Amino acid sequence: MPPLRLGIPKGSLQDSTVQLFARAGWNIYVSSRSYFPGTDDSELECMLIRAQEMARYVADGVIDAGLTGQDWIAEQLIASRAEVVPVQELVYSKQSFGTVKWVLAAPEDSRFKTPKDFAGCTIATELVRVTQQYFEERGVDVTVEFSWGATEVKPPVLADGIVEATETGSTLRANRLRIIDTVMESKTQLIANPAAWADAWKRTKIENIALLLRAAIEAQGRVGLMLNVRREGLARLLELVPALRRPTISPLSDDEWVAVNTIIEERTVRDLVPKLKSAGAEGIVEYPLNKIVM
Amino acid sequence: MPPLRLGIPKGSLQDSTVQLFARAGWNIYVSSRSYFPGTDDSELECMLIRAQEMARYVADGVIDAGLTGQDWIAEQLIASRAEVVPVQELVYSKQSFGTVKWVLAAPEDSRFKTPKDFAGCTIATELVRVTQQYFEERGVDVTVEFSWGATEVKPPVLADGIVEATETGSTLRANRLRIIDTVMESKTQLIANPAAWADAWKRTKIENIALLLRAAIEAQGRVGLMLNVRREGLARLLELVPALRRPTISPLSDDEWVAVNTIIEERTVRDLVPKLKSAGAEGIVEYPLNKIVM
Amino acid sequence: MPPLRLGIPKGSLQDSTVQLFARAGWNIYVSSRSYFPGTDDSELECMLIRAQEMARYVADGVIDAGLTGQDWIAEQLIASRAEVVPVQELVYSKQSFGTVKWVLAAPEDSRFKTPKDFAGCTIATELVRVTQQYFEERGVDVTVEFSWGATEVKPPVLADGIVEATETGSTLRANRLRIIDTVMESKTQLIANPAAWADAWKRTKIENIALLLRAAIEAQGRVGLMLNVRREGLARLLELVPALRRPTISPLSDDEWVAVNTIIEERTVRDLVPKLKSAGAEGIVEYPLNKIVM
Amino acid sequence: MPPLRLGIPKGSLQDSTVQLFARAGWNIYVSSRSYFPGTDDSELECMLIRAQEMARYVADGVIDAGLTGQDWIAEQLIASRAEVVPVQELVYSKQSFGTVKWVLAAPEDSRFKTPKDFAGCTIATELVRVTQQYFEERGVDVTVEFSWGATEVKPPVLADGIVEATETGSTLRANRLRIIDTVMESKTQLIANPAAWADAWKRTKIENIALLLRAAIEAQGRVGLMLNVRREGLARLLELVPALRRPTISPLSDDEWVAVNTIIEERTVRDLVPKLKSAGAEGIVEYPLNKIVM
Amino acid sequence: MPPLRLGIPKGSLQDSTVQLFARAGWNIYVSSRSYFPGTDDSELECMLIRAQEMARYVADGVIDAGLTGQDWIAEQLIASRAEVVPVQELVYSKQSFGTVKWVLAAPEDSRFKTPKDFAGCTIATELVRVTQQYFEERGVDVTVEFSWGATEVKPPVLADGIVEATETGSTLRANRLRIIDTVMESKTQLIANPAAWADAWKRTKIENIALLLRAAIEAQGRVGLMLNVRREGLARLLELVPALRRPTISPLSDDEWVAVNTIIEERTVRDLVPKLKSAGAEGIVEYPLNKIVM
Amino acid sequence: MPPLRLGIPKGSLQDSTVQLFARAGWNIYVSSRSYFPGTDDSELECMLIRAQEMARYVADGVIDAGLTGQDWIAEQLIASRAEVVPVQELVYSKQSFGTVKWVLAAPEDSRFKTPKDFAGCTIATELVRVTQQYFEERGVDVTVEFSWGATEVKPPVLADGIVEATETGSTLRANRLRIIDTVMESKTQLIANPAAWADAWKRTKIENIALLLRAAIEAQGRVGLMLNVRREGLARLLELVPALRRPTISPLSDDEWVAVNTIIEERTVRDLVPKLKSAGAEGIVEYPLNKIVM
Repeated sequence: MPPLRLGIPKGSLQDSTVQLFARAGWNIYVSSRSYFPGTDDSELECMLIRAQEMARYVADGVIDAGLTGQDWIAEQLIASRAEVVPVQELVYSKQSFGTVKWVLAAPEDSRFKTPKDFAGCTIATELVRVTQQYFEERGVDVTVEFSWGATEVKPPVLADGIVEATETGSTLRANRLRIIDTVMESKTQLIANPAAWADAWKRTKIENIALLLRAAIEAQGRVGLMLNVRREGLARLLELVPALRRPTISPLSDDEWVAVNTIIEERTVRDLVPKLKSAGAEGIVEYPLNKIVM
Repeated sequence: MPPLRLGIPKGSLQDSTVQLFARAGWNIYVSSRSYFPGTDDSELECMLIRAQEMARYVADGVIDAGLTGQDWIAEQLIASRAEVVPVQELVYSKQSFGTVKWVLAAPEDSRFKTPKDFAGCTIATELVRVTQQYFEERGVDVTVEFSWGATEVKPPVLADGIVEATETGSTLRANRLRIIDTVMESKTQLIANPAAWADAWKRTKIENIALLLRAAIEAQGRVGLMLNVRREGLARLLELVPALRRPTISPLSDDEWVAVNTIIEERTVRDLVPKLKSAGAEGIVEYPLNKIVM
Repeated sequence: MPPLRLGIPKGSLQDSTVQLFARAGWNIYVSSRSYFPGTDDSELECMLIRAQEMARYVADGVIDAGLTGQDWIAEQLIASRAEVVPVQELVYSKQSFGTVKWVLAAPEDSRFKTPKDFAGCTIATELVRVTQQYFEERGVDVTVEFSWGATEVKPPVLADGIVEATETGSTLRANRLRIIDTVMESKTQLIANPAAWADAWKRTKIENIALLLRAAIEAQGRVGLMLNVRREGLARLLELVPALRRPTISPLSDDEWVAVNTIIEERTVRDLVPKLKSAGAEGIVEYPLNKIVM
Repeated sequence: MPPLRLGIPKGSLQDSTVQLFARAGWNIYVSSRSYFPGTDDSELECMLIRAQEMARYVADGVIDAGLTGQDWIAEQLIASRAEVVPVQELVYSKQSFGTVKWVLAAPEDSRFKTPKDFAGCTIATELVRVTQQYFEERGVDVTVEFSWGATEVKPPVLADGIVEATETGSTLRANRLRIIDTVMESKTQLIANPAAWADAWKRTKIENIALLLRAAIEAQGRVGLMLNVRREGLARLLELVPALRRPTISPLSDDEWVAVNTIIEERTVRDLVPKLKSAGAEGIVEYPLNKIVM
Repeated sequence: MPPLRLGIPKGSLQDSTVQLFARAGWNIYVSSRSYFPGTDDSELECMLIRAQEMARYVADGVIDAGLTGQDWIAEQLIASRAEVVPVQELVYSKQSFGTVKWVLAAPEDSRFKTPKDFAGCTIATELVRVTQQYFEERGVDVTVEFSWGATEVKPPVLADGIVEATETGSTLRANRLRIIDTVMESKTQLIANPAAWADAWKRTKIENIALLLRAAIEAQGRVGLMLNVRREGLARLLELVPALRRPTISPLSDDEWVAVNTIIEERTVRDLVPKLKSAGAEGIVEYPLNKIVM
Repeated sequence: MPPLRLGIPKGSLQDSTVQLFARAGWNIYVSSRSYFPGTDDSELECMLIRAQEMARYVADGVIDAGLTGQDWIAEQLIASRAEVVPVQELVYSKQSFGTVKWVLAAPEDSRFKTPKDFAGCTIATELVRVTQQYFEERGVDVTVEFSWGATEVKPPVLADGIVEATETGSTLRANRLRIIDTVMESKTQLIANPAAWADAWKRTKIENIALLLRAAIEAQGRVGLMLNVRREGLARLLELVPALRRPTISPLSDDEWVAVNTIIEERTVRDLVPKLKSAGAEGIVEYPLNKIVM
């Protein structure tokens, strides 16, 4: 039974990927000297691979599965018409917005308002093929040039417009660029090689990894909530609590009170807690979770 | 309904403030390029402001509320006689002592033993007005000079004494200074502009923020404790546990045993656990909490 | 009642030791300016001491107890024939393998295959006496030279073989060295001075510290697990769960379901969760623990 | 004969000051632990003092002389009406522009075009008194507020305009501020206490320091130039060379040629060299200088 | 008269390029916020451009001239068949070897010995087109894949061989790769746009820059040498000195001695000095040079 | 003809050693990955070796020559009674004091005033054998313990006194220790293996290296000085100039003036320049030197 060969994205996603696996139950030991990090699972063999190249090596079968962005998967697959199995979408970047957007942008004070205005112009981007496809679909004839970096400083001297990844738009604003359209939204994706996916043992292994990665991600936005409430107020209080999971009701040493234990979305806590307090809840306690399998 | 404008203290308190808000349920996204950090609450608009200037801008109504030290609030308000509403005292600095002390200090081997000994002398400090008031209240005539920093190296050449912030006193000792008196103790404070406080929506918003900040702070020094005990030993064991919140008593699969779940102060755990063990507790488990609303 | 004087290992173990004490319930405040860190326990006085020198100072009674590696304890005690009380083995280094191995190694392409092949040769190491003893026990005559560091680059020019600490072996491989034998396995150890151990108050204090350090370490590899299951499936499900501690069974608002709460080893979660799901568990939640006293 | 007590500006000017003294012939040994750097001149005692406070302590006679900016000298002397002797203007900041400008600035898209437009407005600045004087001289009534830093982000929310130091204007542009007027140009200045200046030994010492600092600064923008030229072309060539110092004419082994050695301004080299080559110069060599006393 | 637009290579060559221009007489002020560094020459406008993209923008006429590696010039020009004028080869990287070599490499223990052995294999490289051309010229059919970095860890899993830049070969050795052939040697090159080169003013400006860059580079490997020798020994001594430039012979105050001043290559000094000493030279002094125009 | 094997001290002396060799004419290329730095001299093979171990490996003949401190040479040779040839004392540390002093120190407020006061006490030091010898020579019986570092914090708890290296004494003062005696003064030394020294080729090579290292060191404290003076004032002026080397006297274009060019000690410049100016010197120029062979 060969180990599963898994590609970990080297670079900006590397640390958050390793942390996600740690929360999911796998320790991956990255050393600055080696591209083959160790793990505490003898069924798993990891390799650091650039996000841009992951889909190529998964499609080739060099590795069985890997994590990378949907942007680079699209870029690679347009190029080679190879195929990979999209197993699981994973959103775990540190900012809560999570998704990377690739946007078409041009100087604030330029004449460009819509994609069509770029007809005959030059677009600089790291995501060449996705950008070409975007303009082809709109019937706009542009020259798309590969940019080796610092794309956002190119307009107007070195390019007319750019297609660039952005999370908050602040780098674009700092360079006085205006967003004209969203070319692609991209999340992190676990992908598998079709032949590996057809192998029963490898598929189960990949699915178990996906299940626990998902459980770790689910837990990130959720918290446990315990509170005490008088028996007569319980029904009214339970109406306030969003029903992610059946709450546990436990007796207390004082028979008139019960304890309620439930799981809720973390972002609702700041609004919910004042309401629970008004509804007679006491000793409201929020506690952290590691994993949730709904 | 305008968003609430909230001042976040730039500088030494910035990171711990952002972390406190995260624990309280608000993500504040600070970027090195902007003084207007984003948040995940559309009702909240943040601005980074120096702790020293916070009270001025809250008093002026430039912002509705802000967090800063009581030292700088005092310094600013002595200067301008403006007013702010003290909403909530918050102690969340990373050292458990929490409070900053401003102390009057002089060289170890100097003649200064009491504040009165400084009559006619020069005091260097960043906290000029509070220091002036301190000496005025004691009827001692001194020259208080604003110090741009490195105050602790000034005596005896550049000043006779200093008034300087200290947490543990170690910087003072390293410069061979002796503490003569405490001029002021200062904690972090959430303050509001009086007009904003008079506005119902803004006041509720500020109070909800205060409630959840407090809940996050309360949780920091507290932990959850679960344990199993024989039914006949339960009463004696409950006497040992400090009553912060009614403990939850749950049945176990073995009917002779019950599970107890409670919240206690973290600093008592190291003394309590050996006693609980002697009282027949088994499977004592301590777990972390995010928020507590008593 | 004098405070207990405790040695904290300065250097590579320092941060993880301070973190372990924090999880155990003691805050130790290390400053870059002082070798006498403060604590929040007036019965405890800490001192930073090199791991290599800890056993010497515990044996001398300069400090009552200390933490260091078994490697340096052995090295020191072979030298001085002094004695210390081994109170508690503690494994808390950040890699899960935990144990440091001191291995005998030589160039990949050298003639050395067994310890005997080094007869008449020179061995470079920081662990001189343990290495001498190792070869004496095997009746092999070698010259053991103290190495001031960078030992792994010495063969074959500056030494024939080395005895060096390794966690994963990657530094050895990078220098093209082959491991020939394990000379010593070393874990972190809490040791006490015999006279301090004979003093009732000091011994109780040391034992309480050991109890809570152990509780913090136990918690590291363990997690809490809550899940809901239909009453009729409970028995079958409980068979799947390893019995570290009696699980708590609580009623839910829906009478046909019960909640199960238990403690399991973290490394089993990734295998257990898929099985629990198949056995009808819903709302499986894993949550973190701070301390466990079994 | 007491040593001369000299103030070295702590902070942004510190490193360039120490380097200038090194080029001038004095080694100043700054340690991170002490505000009293050592020197290799037993007649000199140095002290690190903030640029903002230097003039105060020179005026008070705490130190005999010091280096600081003309901006902070003006700010301090307006406050205290004390006096210092301006010994020598020194321009040695690392950018060739050298001079710091304090400019009045406001948002790019604001209504402010001239100083008068700020009547009734608030100006934030670190240079409070110079700014007050500037507006008083123009008869404009403004509120000048001391800014603790990050002044450039204050308009328009926290202030209407600012007075801020700038070398290239790029920080202002990045914050979308427009420069309205120059409030003050400031260079570094060696100043002396009037009583120290009246003391013959101290004055000579200060003057010698000034002479050698000036010699080191002069050398920075100058270089030595050696070249060979035929005797008959010498006169024409000498007309091309700017006459900073009489050129040295030396015979060569080949009697028809002479060597010319002179000192010129470095910034003229890039234009002069092509001309010298056309005029028949060969073997043109530029070499660096340490000091020049004209 | 428009300024000359000059491209400075962003990235690994940036600092050494800016330093070279400084030695040549132009100060270029790079700020981390802008890609348009300022200069002290109003006739010159600089722009930071990636080395990989420089040739494209010079060929397009976006900039008039630029500095980049011959590797990236070749790569770009194979792609676009555009043209640039090769003005001046410049070798100024900090290691004395200076030249970057792109080598074909494969695992130490692989079967690959010559380029032909790669027939049907995959080559990973950042220099795709130059590599394709190299194999085409040898009639070897390979798949050349663009590598986004960390190319040296790809064999044997992700590629069969690589073409990678190397200065000393140590990174290759550390990854256990063997060099099979040199694909290209590359030096830094000043290139010009053909239309800019046809413009008289621009061409003169580019030529003057090239002249002074060359003068600065020449000076780097050369030093000045002064020595005293008796008149009767002069002839014999002059035979020892390599004749880069006619030596200057000057009289000394003692008529029997003369001073000799000359320029020699720095790397010969360590061998020459002992010989000069044997030949009667006294007071041998080596001094540094800034520029040499032969 | 085998290359000369030369040991370069790894650690605190490493960078300054490499810089000294660069000034002397040898480029040594240190990489963080290898202990065998490359050079630009095919007759030289370098190896990085700890200063503490250098003498051992030179004595053993593992390397032919090496640079290290006289402190570690003494320590090693006392231990092994091996022999090395002391070729050249080299003082090139960056502080002008240059020499490291090993001092005996004890707490400021302790009873220790002379070495004899330590009879029966414990001394902690890294320089064990030199310290033992020092006390034996004085007939004082002490226990000398090897200290693994942070020696200066050991008194009075972990040791009674220490022997520690110091350049300025500031670390000792910061730890409130008083210097009682100087145990050893140590400079950097080039040493050779006796057999290598007996080999003609190796000895010449070592001597040439020593000559050029010395020339580079000589140049560090010296500078060139050029000035113009009227012929009639020449004699008086020459009396002022210290006679390190015969000054060169050259005619100027104006026959009444001559140019003087000489070499003087840098530390005399700051006193000499004002005197030369008074003596009628004009255009005084100081320029830097690379090497001086007297």
